[in-house]
Amino acid sequence: MKGLFVSLEGPEGAGKSTQIALIRNLLQEKQIPFMIVREPGGTRIGDLIRNILLNPELTEMTQRTEMLLYAASRAQLVEQKIIPALRQGQMVLCDRYVDSSIVYQSIGAKWDLDEVIAINDIATGCLKPDRTYLLDLPVEISQQRLLSRQAEKDRIEMKDIDFHLRVREGYLALAQEEPERFRVIKATGSIEEVFEQIADDLRKLIEVHYK
Amino acid sequence: MKGLFVSLEGPEGAGKSTQIALIRNLLQEKQIPFMIVREPGGTRIGDLIRNILLNPELTEMTQRTEMLLYAASRAQLVEQKIIPALRQGQMVLCDRYVDSSIVYQSIGAKWDLDEVIAINDIATGCLKPDRTYLLDLPVEISQQRLLSRQAEKDRIEMKDIDFHLRVREGYLALAQEEPERFRVIKATGSIEEVFEQIADDLRKLIEVHYK
Repeated sequence: MKGLFVSLEGPEGAGKSTQIALIRNLLQEKQIPFMIVREPGGTRIGDLIRNILLNPELTEMTQRTEMLLYAASRAQLVEQKIIPALRQGQMVLCDRYVDSSIVYQSIGAKWDLDEVIAINDIATGCLKPDRTYLLDLPVEISQQRLLSRQAEKDRIEMKDIDFHLRVREGYLALAQEEPERFRVIKATGSIEEVFEQIADDLRKLIEVHYK
Repeated sequence: MKGLFVSLEGPEGAGKSTQIALIRNLLQEKQIPFMIVREPGGTRIGDLIRNILLNPELTEMTQRTEMLLYAASRAQLVEQKIIPALRQGQMVLCDRYVDSSIVYQSIGAKWDLDEVIAINDIATGCLKPDRTYLLDLPVEISQQRLLSRQAEKDRIEMKDIDFHLRVREGYLALAQEEPERFRVIKATGSIEEVFEQIADDLRKLIEVHYK
């Protein structure tokens, strides 16, 4: 594996998409070859799976089914896109990855943690990011940001406030477990302030990796 | 669990659909409450997953993805339909179940057997049929039957002859491992001859179970 593998994590409303756009600019400036992928989805098959996962009408979906569909989408993404890109030396930037499953399915939805990890190890062949940026902010703020968006809420966003509190705790616990991989980014500041925290670290990583 | 759980297994062209229609008649005659389900699919969400799995255009699908999608469809079916029906005392008749995954994904497609079993245990909560009828016939005969059908072959049917030989061996090995659960049915005879082998056994099971 020659390329650098980076993931962005955090709740809806933390600003992941905005930050990814800014990271894209940085990588273009530095002429680093890169690929940005989105979870769930990111491939033709993954997008079909994503349509099922985010369909707000499918309220009968069980937690097991949800977990297995996320894993299926991820398996396709890893083998079809991420591994080939890393082999070619590209930087891969993932909008959500395994940590999302661990947090949303095991901690948020009270699913058995070992089972989520086992399934995701199979789905990814144990491929982990070199760096994960966790956009962290209080639940009240992410909820306010979401309410101000006019779009119809998808199935995940419709869960209750307690779910979102546990998601935040879950993410922070993961970051504490793997301090080498995680960088916790305060996402309450301005777009530029948030980006500077990411860019400071990413510039160093790129320097080491693409010297 | 009060209901009787029965699955039918075997390659395409073995006559599963025909036999299921005949079993349906038998159950109606005997006034046994029953539910017939189909794998993959059998639920609204499972049918959406089935559409992805059997789409012949999606040739880029990895084996990991395929295995996880089958498991996701099955998880939904088990929790939403099979378990509630069994609790109500219905007989559940499954057109393919876990054994199909074990055979097609692990043996046929050279996937790691332990991983297939682990994922399916999670998907089903380890729920197994009380009885499994394996419709067994030589590969040349199932291939001839398939060729005589005019319909476009789906992705699985398009695999080569060696794949189908290994599927047959895999099924027979499973049957040998669990002789209490499996009944191997010679599917080379006439429709009536095949059905009599199934019905002989099924009538006894029903007598014990629904006396």
